[in-house]
Amino acid sequence: MMKLYYEAHTCALASHIALEEAGAEYSTVRISFAAEEQRKPAYLAINPKGRVPALVTERGILTETPAMLAFVAQSFPKARLAPLDDPFGFAELQAFNSYLCATLHVAHAHRMRGYRWADDPAAIEAMKRKVPDSVGACYELIESKMLRGPWVMGDSYTICDPYLFTVAQWMEGDSVDPARFPKVSDHRNRMAERAAVRRAIAEELA
Amino acid sequence: MMKLYYEAHTCALASHIALEEAGAEYSTVRISFAAEEQRKPAYLAINPKGRVPALVTERGILTETPAMLAFVAQSFPKARLAPLDDPFGFAELQAFNSYLCATLHVAHAHRMRGYRWADDPAAIEAMKRKVPDSVGACYELIESKMLRGPWVMGDSYTICDPYLFTVAQWMEGDSVDPARFPKVSDHRNRMAERAAVRRAIAEELA
Repeated sequence: MMKLYYEAHTCALASHIALEEAGAEYSTVRISFAAEEQRKPAYLAINPKGRVPALVTERGILTETPAMLAFVAQSFPKARLAPLDDPFGFAELQAFNSYLCATLHVAHAHRMRGYRWADDPAAIEAMKRKVPDSVGACYELIESKMLRGPWVMGDSYTICDPYLFTVAQWMEGDSVDPARFPKVSDHRNRMAERAAVRRAIAEELA
Repeated sequence: MMKLYYEAHTCALASHIALEEAGAEYSTVRISFAAEEQRKPAYLAINPKGRVPALVTERGILTETPAMLAFVAQSFPKARLAPLDDPFGFAELQAFNSYLCATLHVAHAHRMRGYRWADDPAAIEAMKRKVPDSVGACYELIESKMLRGPWVMGDSYTICDPYLFTVAQWMEGDSVDPARFPKVSDHRNRMAERAAVRRAIAEELA
């Protein structure tokens, strides 16, 4: 049985939702960031990057949300979470997820993890100040060019949807007004109603 | 025929090499960053993110290096650039590429593109100063935990190899001494000898 290492309010929720949508059998382990468990040897033995999520499978350990989401889609084809026999369609999903991972999540991370990229406290404060702009610009692009509706890729619900929903939970914290982005907000509201999403969130906060 | 939009010395080289390795038919278009072509309407119509690479296919346009690399591997299965029938093996490649995209490349980008994450010139200078540390830490992890050898994933050459080679070209510019990382350096040297790599680089610099 697979085991998902997560912390609440992190991008691990995307993989958690995908596992629920897929009907996978798995257990979860919460890693307390408050206790800095992600930097302790027990967890570094699982993920030497010291971050969540990590997914322990019978074959080994996976990290990185885009990789884990595609893994869930490919491992549970009946859940139809990605166009598995269409390289172009699959690549469109991957491009969307890569953008969330490497651009949107990175912009967001400058609010609380600026120490990764500068040591000067004033620089870290300067990074925090730009987050509403840099994250907001990501949502402008998503709203105007990327989110097809009703789901990210159009009529089919895919692995892009839990990921967008997950990062969109951070909008208010990043001082990005959801009201500026009606398509993203509508997506978020519909996602929040899904049984798989409710189950994943309830378990993370239990 | 596919068309790859690139700029020399960017991560576009990874996809360029993969297309060469796959024996794909494609043409290339260089986007001059010096002339800021990536921000002009003609290119924004191709990639509204204003970045390279972009790959124009008969089905539409793809962006994001990890997505493009997986697309090449899936579109040219005879080139055996990824374990296409093994979700776990495929996810391992994707996790590696996601790390390069969202952690290593992002750390590197703080040297020349700090304006993405802060407006204060002093903060941008502070980001530059940390690049040798933050990029160096990525290579420590790659060297000690991720690069199996002789290729990234072990005995099989995959889409991870052109990507690692591509970002490793930036080590000296990032003030990261390659001599600290013998496995990465050996990989880089062997990659540089490959015919596909030589062709891609020669064309980019022509």
